Order: sequence, then structure tokens, then C-alpha cells
Amino acid sequence: MGEFDLIRRFFQRPAAPGVEVGVGDDCAVLVPTPGARWLVSSDMLVEGRHFLSTVAPERLGHKALAVNLSDLAACGATPRGFTLALALPRVDEAWLAGFARGLWALADASGIPLIGGDTTQGPLNICITVFGEAPPGQVLLRSGARIGDEIWVSGRLGDARLALEVFRGTVALDGAGFDIVRAAMEYPTPRLALGQALRGIATAAIDISDGLLGDLGHILAASGVGAQLDVDALPRSSVLASQPMALQQECLLAGGDDYELVFTALAGAVLPDVGVPLTRIGVIEAEPGLRVVDAHGLSVEHGLRSFDHFAS
Amino acid sequence: MGEFDLIRRFFQRPAAPGVEVGVGDDCAVLVPTPGARWLVSSDMLVEGRHFLSTVAPERLGHKALAVNLSDLAACGATPRGFTLALALPRVDEAWLAGFARGLWALADASGIPLIGGDTTQGPLNICITVFGEAPPGQVLLRSGARIGDEIWVSGRLGDARLALEVFRGTVALDGAGFDIVRAAMEYPTPRLALGQALRGIATAAIDISDGLLGDLGHILAASGVGAQLDVDALPRSSVLASQPMALQQECLLAGGDDYELVFTALAGAVLPDVGVPLTRIGVIEAEPGLRVVDAHGLSVEHGLRSFDHFAS
Repeated sequence: MGEFDLIRRFFQRPAAPGVEVGVGDDCAVLVPTPGARWLVSSDMLVEGRHFLSTVAPERLGHKALAVNLSDLAACGATPRGFTLALALPRVDEAWLAGFARGLWALADASGIPLIGGDTTQGPLNICITVFGEAPPGQVLLRSGARIGDEIWVSGRLGDARLALEVFRGTVALDGAGFDIVRAAMEYPTPRLALGQALRGIATAAIDISDGLLGDLGHILAASGVGAQLDVDALPRSSVLASQPMALQQECLLAGGDDYELVFTALAGAVLPDVGVPLTRIGVIEAEPGLRVVDAHGLSVEHGLRSFDHFAS
Repeated sequence: MGEFDLIRRFFQRPAAPGVEVGVGDDCAVLVPTPGARWLVSSDMLVEGRHFLSTVAPERLGHKALAVNLSDLAACGATPRGFTLALALPRVDEAWLAGFARGLWALADASGIPLIGGDTTQGPLNICITVFGEAPPGQVLLRSGARIGDEIWVSGRLGDARLALEVFRGTVALDGAGFDIVRAAMEYPTPRLALGQALRGIATAAIDISDGLLGDLGHILAASGVGAQLDVDALPRSSVLASQPMALQQECLLAGGDDYELVFTALAGAVLPDVGVPLTRIGVIEAEPGLRVVDAHGLSVEHGLRSFDHFAS
């Protein structure tokens, strides 16, 4: 199977609404919504860094798009389209069929058409770029947190990291527990509806990809504020809650790969109900830095840092 | 140097006009031109397939962006922004400085800001996605060629392939000749001004990345027409013209990596002068297929095919 057959078979469909030209010309052509801002984000996934060789191709197809949609969600954007660039060591039709199935299922569920891309031979690499729209002045940014704002997080944290520890052999779980945390790692849900519902409500937002401490730290730095964070308030699964406290805290605070939203809002703001649990986890303060405390307000030591692809 | 330092040092600048939020949030935010269509293209470059390990990083930075801008050019788009996703085996500051220098030089010359992206550790891989705009109904597509249209090509063809043959050891050139063809391979010029000037004039267009026969073939297929092509009319450098005729024809017809535009226009149309030589190389015909002839109208045998990343 050649390059163009591969694209036709797995990655080409009739153009979707709002897409004037999709896959198959030099560029895709989209019809923007009048007055809307145009949002763009790009993520590259590499085997061994962002996913393990053991992941089912269908879950990988899902996750590769999910981590990109999570960036649109963090900005409150409505998805409009995405491109897929794929380097493959060889053409493995079963792998491609699974990958495409997972990718399309999430794309269809999220209402985002695949509009173009590239395929080439090389070490496995998946680069997706997503495009979305939001009304002017309603894009959720990292820079809007204000003193006294409450800090909230969606869903629950830490399961993906716990699953990684099982793969690393440092933690043992029973089959049912492993299935739960493995799904969190391999099958994250981008919080698109929540992000859109938070337009005009959240003062700042980010998605948690590198760990809560680091990603919340980006909000604090961009907003020029500090925060106090209640580690005991952090939402967690019963599987994670049954682990030793030090491991729980590491997974919750520095785990990464959560793809939940952490956001700030005026104290007492009415938050939207889109079927995703929201938990208040702290408060924005004037004093710079991030102070982690327990439910009794006592300081929790942490030497944790967020994930950095080039840190030694 | 960590991931975020790397981005700050080499790939972050103040936001450009029309860019509301650039590098440094979950998404970049752009202000679209009212009424314009939005164009998107993405290309992934892998060592050993799209470039040799011997290429200077500055030239690689240029070429990685150039091949993407060439897709915008082929559609007649005005550049608006691009994202860069980069997988690097390690942080090599000298390499990064050279790559960034080549990338920024072309970005500045083309008026296109870097608005976001991703960096990660992995086998060297460069994925760039470009965004541009064009007025509705004036996007140059592959599908508009009509019977009787003339076929034109910009610049000259085949030098990049000739350089590759030198690297492969099948051709020997003197130093001056090699410098000329090597620059064509490593330092292509995207025909942005020409593409924009061809809005409303060209009936179909494509850029030549996989070889003239294959890329012109895409126009013929999308337009439902055939063509006759005069191989002797194809523009070539004096370096290529001094090679055996069979090699000349292979480089001209199936070389690839040219990044010139091949386009069709009504016979007798007044073509724009943007300082790029334009050469008439054939005519669109009703009969399907592509007939290659010489200056005497005699059929030229060719078993050449265009480049396919997964062809065996």
C-alpha cells in the first residue's frame, strides 16, 4: 500500500460542514465564523515518552487527539478541525486500522473533522495540530487569576501516573484497579464542554499535562500571583486513595498526563454543570509561590517538580 | 537547559500583529481577516528521508519552513502563522541556534510569525503546520484545470534531484556546480508572492514536492483532464543541462523537492511578473493521461514515477 492509498483508506472522508476543502489539496480551506478568534495548538507524541509500545493502537489514536483537544478545552474553544502528521516505521494495516478507529471515534464525538496532514516513513511519531474558535475576549488564558479567586479542578487526578508506576514495576494493583488507572492513562477525556461552559466564568485555566504543581505554576507565573493548595482536597479514585500517602501525593501533585482542567474563578461564582465533577482545591493569594497544605492547614513538604522533556 | 528554557531562548518572541496570544499559553490566538478563508497545511520532515544528516542546521531550519510555505504558495494564500513541533535526540545548543537562525530568517522574510508548538525528546523529527488566508473563491486548487489551458512552471526544475545523486555517488560535479544544485536542494524558495499574484489568473496550481509528473498528475486527476508536456521546454540550470539527457529527464520529470509551482491558465492569459521566471511547458487536453513529448512533438518514453514514502 502506497502513501496516497494509505491516506485514502484510513484518513480521508467527505468534507464536513465549514470545511470548504479537506484532505487532498495542498491546503485545507476552512470557513471561519465571523468575528470569532482563531485558536491553534500542536502536540507531538513519541513512543517511550508519551506512550508505551504496549498501548493498543485504538487507544493511541484516541489519546493523540485527546491531548490536543485538551488544549482547546483549556482555552474554552469550540473545535473546528485538525491535521495529522504521522511517521511510521512501516505500513502495518492492522495497526493503522486500530489507530484510525480510535482517532475517528473521538473526532466524531467531539465534532472535529480531520482536514489534512502528512504521512512519511520514520521512527513512530504522531504530530497533531488542532484549530478552534472562541468569541473575542472570552478565550480562557493562564494570565487572568486574581487574588482571592478560588482554584478548581475537574474530574480526578493521579490515576495516569499510578498506572505508569505499575508499568514501571514499582506498584502492584489487582486487575480491576489496574484497568481503571490504565484507562485514565491511555484513554483521557478532553474537557471540551466544560471549557466552553467556563467562558466568561473562569478567570484563568490550563489543562494538566505535566502535573498539577507545574501547570498551576504556569497560571501563577502568568498572572503574577501565588496560591495555597489543599492536597487533601484533591479528587482521587478509590484505587489511588488506597495507596500510601506519599505515593498519592506524588501522583496527585506531580503525576501529569491527567488532562483535567485546573482553573480559577471569583469566590462564590456559579459554576456550570456539564456532568463533570468540579472540586475546590485552593485559593489565589498575593504572596508569590505555591504553598501546599493538608486539610488542617499544615504545610506539606514537597520536593516534587513537574515533567520536563529535557530535564537531566 | 530544560524544555521551557529551550523554547524561551530559541523560539519565543513578542506577539506579532494579528496574533493576540503567541507562544506560551495552551493555544495561540489569532485575529482572522473578516471574510477571508482560512488555509492550513502540515508537513513532517524526518532525517534520512527529507534531509541528510550532513545538512547545516541553518539550512534545515530554512527548508523545514520553506516546504510548508510552498503549500500556502500553491493555494495563493497570505501567510498568517505557523507552529513548530520538534523532537530532538538531545539538546545541542549550537544545532538549535543554527536551526532557529535559518527558520527565523525565512519567517521574517515571509512575514509569518511562529505562534506555538511543542518540543520533546525523541528521534529527530520536525513537524510544521502553517496557516494562511485568501479571499473566498480565489483559493488556488488542483481541480480547476480546463481543456485548452496552458501549463506553466516557475523557476527551474531538477537541481535538487541532481544534488541528491551527487550525495548518492552516482554523479560527480565540480565544486561550483555542486554548490548551485546543493543550494536548490537545501535552500528552496517558496513562491509566496507568485501564488498570491496568481489569484484569479491560475485555474489550478500545485507545488512540486514529489516530482513534476506526479504532482501535475494530481491536477489532471482532480480536474478530470489529460495533458501534453514538452520535456525539452522544461527550465533547467546550466549544471543540469550539461548532464546526459536521460539523467536530465529523470531529474526534471520525477526529481521532486523542487518547490516550484506548476499551474494552469487560460491560453493567452497575462501572467504576473513577480521576478520569478515562468515557462510554458504544455497544454491541457481532453484525453486522459499525461503525454510527454520532445520539442519535435515526438513521444518520449518514460517509466518514471513520483516519490512515494511507502512504495516498495
